[in-house]
Amino acid sequence: MITINIIGFGNVATHLISHINTLEDYTIQAIYSRSKNTTQNLPIVNDINKLRSADITLISVTDDAIAELSARLPYQNSLIAHTSGTVSIDEITHERRGVFYPLQTFSKQKEVDFSEIPLCLEATNSKDYALLENLALKLTKKVYSISSLQRKKIHITAVFVCNFVNHLFTIGKDIADENDIPFEIFMPLIQETVNKIKTLDPAQAQTGPAIRNDFLTIEQHLLQISNNNYKNIYKLLSNSIIQHGKKL
Amino acid sequence: MITINIIGFGNVATHLISHINTLEDYTIQAIYSRSKNTTQNLPIVNDINKLRSADITLISVTDDAIAELSARLPYQNSLIAHTSGTVSIDEITHERRGVFYPLQTFSKQKEVDFSEIPLCLEATNSKDYALLENLALKLTKKVYSISSLQRKKIHITAVFVCNFVNHLFTIGKDIADENDIPFEIFMPLIQETVNKIKTLDPAQAQTGPAIRNDFLTIEQHLLQISNNNYKNIYKLLSNSIIQHGKKL
Repeated sequence: MITINIIGFGNVATHLISHINTLEDYTIQAIYSRSKNTTQNLPIVNDINKLRSADITLISVTDDAIAELSARLPYQNSLIAHTSGTVSIDEITHERRGVFYPLQTFSKQKEVDFSEIPLCLEATNSKDYALLENLALKLTKKVYSISSLQRKKIHITAVFVCNFVNHLFTIGKDIADENDIPFEIFMPLIQETVNKIKTLDPAQAQTGPAIRNDFLTIEQHLLQISNNNYKNIYKLLSNSIIQHGKKL
Repeated sequence: MITINIIGFGNVATHLISHINTLEDYTIQAIYSRSKNTTQNLPIVNDINKLRSADITLISVTDDAIAELSARLPYQNSLIAHTSGTVSIDEITHERRGVFYPLQTFSKQKEVDFSEIPLCLEATNSKDYALLENLALKLTKKVYSISSLQRKKIHITAVFVCNFVNHLFTIGKDIADENDIPFEIFMPLIQETVNKIKTLDPAQAQTGPAIRNDFLTIEQHLLQISNNNYKNIYKLLSNSIIQHGKKL
């Protein structure tokens, strides 16, 4: 039986706990939370000094608390891994350190299908990597070896394909609302935009006035956008599509 | 039996033909195509002057050919509707005119579930609107009455939520490729970004460094983006998210 300590009880920790709890060969030895007590049958510990060493310790707290909490763990010589997308593996002060990063946006209320979530792993030696990989493969089919540098780039990419994409949805909804157009009308189009890149390179899937060099439509659109921010975004993204198209 | 003429044989026309062909109370009387002959059992007409009047004529050609083709139709006094997202209803010269616009990106090779595609309708009188609506409701559950002005705004919105979103996917793939990160790793995140706005307002679903006013992370990201276009897009979209967040 492999023992696991979980440090933290936030969104990611909550999802990890509920899924690890279902695994046969793993047991959650302790969950460290300063403030929480649950009525569920979970081994919560409020004093970090009372934690005993476990085979794997997963630190799942806010980015800026990882270094401090790893330093305060009252044991050495076991594997300590954090679950952050941005923090370097070296912020963990222990010799045996790792990263166990699920690439997904979590909300506490919303159930996720963990088996579809990519887990990005890193460790300082191959034995510890195998320890993380064995656990990861019990949770998901999608396990990747990702260096700290790659993880930084993943975070930047996620800002483009998730955070910025969502902001374009926000802009779309603003324009739709202004013109009494129900936003739901765009959902099939949005879903198809995603479906296309499952089989096509996004650059190949590009449609719209910019990739056609249809400057007349672009000019007409710009005249009709009243919000200056949105107008600038329209210009910059159209130019970028045109530039990118020239390289194809 | 309601008769339909289809003018054009492009992507949208092809999908309309194959779906209308399955309807009991409708018959495709003629398909006008200058150049095409198919081996399938379709009533193709190559000379526009040989077309006979039908209850509904759907003009499904490129935007700049709509006005000319509607003027060249050899009959009057029946309903003529185009399928374009951008062209005004008034580019059709006939008195009984309409719009029958499916809001989706079509590829000829790819089957689409037509019943999920929103159809945006417009007509100059209520009787003709009903004629279009009856046909639309046989094809899809999602039928909307949309004015020419609203349709223009829909097109602008679609550029933001489809064309520009796809370009962000392109940028993401560029960064991923540069760093040997398999782009498939982002697909669950991208799908969840879309799933969230099925139940949440996009502004409420916003996550990432900008909405948290996490300027440190934004600065670090900007330092790591080498492409100047992408750097400018990162800045402008982050600022827009920050501005928008202040209004909430």
